[in-house]
Amino acid sequence: MQALTLHEHLIGRQGSRAALNTPALIVDLPALERNIAAMAAFAARTGLRLRPHAKTHKSVEIARRQIAAGAVGICCAKLGEAEALSDGGVENILITSPVVGPAAVERLAALAARSPGLMATADHPDAVYALARSGAVLTVLVDIDPGIHRTGVCNAEAALALARRIDAAPNLTYGGVQFYCGAQQHIEIFAARRAALHDRTDYLAAVIARLTEAGLAPALVTGGGSGSHAIDAELGVLTELQVGSYIFMDRQYADCDLPFETSLMIDSRVISANHPALSTVDAGFKAFATEAGPPPVLAGAPAGSVYHFMGDEHGCVVPPRGETPPRLGEVVTFAAPHCDPTVNLYEAYHVVSGDTLVGIWAIEGRGRSA
Amino acid sequence: MQALTLHEHLIGRQGSRAALNTPALIVDLPALERNIAAMAAFAARTGLRLRPHAKTHKSVEIARRQIAAGAVGICCAKLGEAEALSDGGVENILITSPVVGPAAVERLAALAARSPGLMATADHPDAVYALARSGAVLTVLVDIDPGIHRTGVCNAEAALALARRIDAAPNLTYGGVQFYCGAQQHIEIFAARRAALHDRTDYLAAVIARLTEAGLAPALVTGGGSGSHAIDAELGVLTELQVGSYIFMDRQYADCDLPFETSLMIDSRVISANHPALSTVDAGFKAFATEAGPPPVLAGAPAGSVYHFMGDEHGCVVPPRGETPPRLGEVVTFAAPHCDPTVNLYEAYHVVSGDTLVGIWAIEGRGRSA
Repeated sequence: MQALTLHEHLIGRQGSRAALNTPALIVDLPALERNIAAMAAFAARTGLRLRPHAKTHKSVEIARRQIAAGAVGICCAKLGEAEALSDGGVENILITSPVVGPAAVERLAALAARSPGLMATADHPDAVYALARSGAVLTVLVDIDPGIHRTGVCNAEAALALARRIDAAPNLTYGGVQFYCGAQQHIEIFAARRAALHDRTDYLAAVIARLTEAGLAPALVTGGGSGSHAIDAELGVLTELQVGSYIFMDRQYADCDLPFETSLMIDSRVISANHPALSTVDAGFKAFATEAGPPPVLAGAPAGSVYHFMGDEHGCVVPPRGETPPRLGEVVTFAAPHCDPTVNLYEAYHVVSGDTLVGIWAIEGRGRSA
Repeated sequence: MQALTLHEHLIGRQGSRAALNTPALIVDLPALERNIAAMAAFAARTGLRLRPHAKTHKSVEIARRQIAAGAVGICCAKLGEAEALSDGGVENILITSPVVGPAAVERLAALAARSPGLMATADHPDAVYALARSGAVLTVLVDIDPGIHRTGVCNAEAALALARRIDAAPNLTYGGVQFYCGAQQHIEIFAARRAALHDRTDYLAAVIARLTEAGLAPALVTGGGSGSHAIDAELGVLTELQVGSYIFMDRQYADCDLPFETSLMIDSRVISANHPALSTVDAGFKAFATEAGPPPVLAGAPAGSVYHFMGDEHGCVVPPRGETPPRLGEVVTFAAPHCDPTVNLYEAYHVVSGDTLVGIWAIEGRGRSA
């Protein structure tokens, strides 16, 4: 794969970041390491199991580092992502989306046979029936809808019925529950985020009480995210955190006052500079996820410069009035608007320390949505 | 690559489309072939050279079919895309974005040495100087800004100065001009689109007159797009059409009254169905480009159903009030909101005829923005 080899000769060469072909997805290694260490320390301090969500980074190398720092395993969003990371040697993977459809269930059964500690989730009796019939030997969690109506069972009785079905299947182990408050993660005001999570956690506690009363107390209560981790720990109902974005941070989390650093960037290059008020860079819809607004300009252009998308392959950088836009060939660095789908556009991370390329890491799970 | 092998056993098996792991990028082969034939016939009828833009499909197989139908070559947006298609055996490639930066220029020179008929564009004296110095033997076009300030020289004098520089470089051949009216392609009302293009084409004609007067008449005047092709032919200034989206069509072009069919689709599957008013499918930000709105629902849900994004991996399908949403495991088919960046999310096309998978084609240029 070209992305893994094109810049191999630059690894370790002082100042080599500036020589990268662009657009390039950049990881600042010291910042990444500090983020991984900070979350591991938080989990250790609060006694929570840490199972970082690999849908953020999709990378065997980063999963390994998270596990080396103390994580019990990782989450993957989809079966294909789990296959990719498992094939890279990562163990104890939880697939957080229901696996549905005959072809996918067959692949799940095959993966369970070769991937130690694999767990899946379910939110429908028919899906549990298909898993039971497949013969897949694995642990299954009941996914509980926190009210966003994306996935999950809708109430305590449905959770109990599903837990019983899992528990009754000879090849399946009932492992507990999953509860992900996605909509609450990005509430910018901490007090408002806390209030929203408090309400949802009360609901979760009620569901757990019902399961416990019926003899199906969940061993695992997994969920949470980077935006809610401190609140989740304080509320004390989750036993395991599925934090993802903390390793990179992005525009969406930048205003949420979290104790992590931006470690993910995109380096672009000015490829047209014929106007006094703007320059065109080689990064557009194919370089940045577009659903979370334009990427913030971090470096390479006057302070206060803004970016506008100009199609698949281009965008323009507009400095404040009176300032000069970057010149032809200059590198402009951006933060990711939304890290997960931005990472999904690239084959590899270009890992830097200061201005030197120190490694190239494959993004094995890229595009593995199926 | 898993995407190329996972479904190989389904090729030619009656009804196999329904058995695909989802989300899957689908091409309707008969519709694709009709689109390719229709544009080839249009070009033949109007006497225009046809150089389809491969940034739409990024695929060696589709480029081959376009060339077999009469195209003189293809366009690529970026150097990396050109490398990928050239390595697949495609010749006569025009790279439509300026190639800037020492590493990229070096790669361009190497590609020119192995890729017959390669052409590049330039819009700045420094870029031409770098190409001249690289020793790359290739034809270079002057890119002319139609007024959108993305790439291109800004006026006739700048075009002439650049043409002279190219012409003076011993290793470069001055090939003519490029003029792409991107902003005008999607104007929905034909008369308004025609008026906008008429105005811009008058400007182009004035630039060409200046070049001609100076003894640098452009042999090639390349540009245009799917939205403007009929108008471009009528105005008679372009000699070559860079149409891209006509092969697939998408939501953006659906309202532009063009004589082409939707041949590109995304098949998804319902993976959660616990609510009476909606179902959740396994396709989100990683399955559809997001900058052009939600994907239209084509099949698998009641008429009038709409899709809403629900994160990286999910979306919900909401039928009209009183209708039943699709059931767990059912396949829901969407059109692409915007074809180029949607294709960029996938490794392969699943090519169907009716409900049968008939081929799997690699998307060699995927992600090759650098």
